[in-house]
Amino acid sequence: MIERIETNQRMSKIVKHNGVVYLCGQVGIAEDSVAEQTRECLRRVEDLLAKAGSSPSKILQAIVWLADMEDFAEMNAVWDNWVPEGYAPARACGEAKLARPELKVEMIVTAAYDA
Amino acid sequence: MIERIETNQRMSKIVKHNGVVYLCGQVGIAEDSVAEQTRECLRRVEDLLAKAGSSPSKILQAIVWLADMEDFAEMNAVWDNWVPEGYAPARACGEAKLARPELKVEMIVTAAYDA
Amino acid sequence: MIERIETNQRMSKIVKHNGVVYLCGQVGIAEDSVAEQTRECLRRVEDLLAKAGSSPSKILQAIVWLADMEDFAEMNAVWDNWVPEGYAPARACGEAKLARPELKVEMIVTAAYDA
Repeated sequence: MIERIETNQRMSKIVKHNGVVYLCGQVGIAEDSVAEQTRECLRRVEDLLAKAGSSPSKILQAIVWLADMEDFAEMNAVWDNWVPEGYAPARACGEAKLARPELKVEMIVTAAYDA
Repeated sequence: MIERIETNQRMSKIVKHNGVVYLCGQVGIAEDSVAEQTRECLRRVEDLLAKAGSSPSKILQAIVWLADMEDFAEMNAVWDNWVPEGYAPARACGEAKLARPELKVEMIVTAAYDA
Repeated sequence: MIERIETNQRMSKIVKHNGVVYLCGQVGIAEDSVAEQTRECLRRVEDLLAKAGSSPSKILQAIVWLADMEDFAEMNAVWDNWVPEGYAPARACGEAKLARPELKVEMIVTAAYDA
């Protein structure tokens, strides 16, 4: 009924249930620029969605946390280029400091998958 | 399988899937008071839910971001008055700066719709 | 179609729909340490999940807000010990001030239940 992939004691990177896949919060590499962190974050999202039998065109909701809202435009430039045209999810973006001070962006992605 | 309404390159205002509708983060008008921003935000939520075949009595979860937690009581006064009696959703409220410094409140709404 | 439990004018502690239960944001007791707040928060989550016909082994997604990211390790120590081995949910953790200044941790939990 619930399928978990890449599970450790703290979290599962992927949880599938009833046609919906929940990814754990994805980040990039801490030392990079916000643009590169966003690119790496989205690469990881894409990889996890593939493992879940989903894809970027099936994202339902994305919640974006930026450590500094000043990075909004730079993050969006990468995001807008990445989203498959016509398949943009519902999205919200707020400012929140992240688990390590060098992390600039985190995304919480929920998507559909083919059952 | 996934229906999107009011989609641009960045986000869809409405995404419907499997009986659940995800709205993109809704805000009010940046220059207004928190009470008026909350009222306008909820007007927009109501409008989007109607377009999605849902309604305020079918909200499952609302995540509220306040730019300043000092506005908690003022936001709640509007919210409590707006929620249809007996139909309140699960809710959480945390402090997060928003996309523009004048924005005081944002709501991330997930609701049911009649399939 | 939607079942609400412990509903007041502002929120429902539990909302069930289509196999998924949404809990309202759970906190601990404001005066306590972050470890004890996390323990109490998770006790409340466990209690609400039981009332919803769910359990900690059926959590799909947990969004954790810490008022101060310095508390990350202390919160995680309690969390890691609480999660049933092999059943960890998708998780994300960001910094957000909470409804009262003494509150250190809040969790937004979504879980599956047996229909």
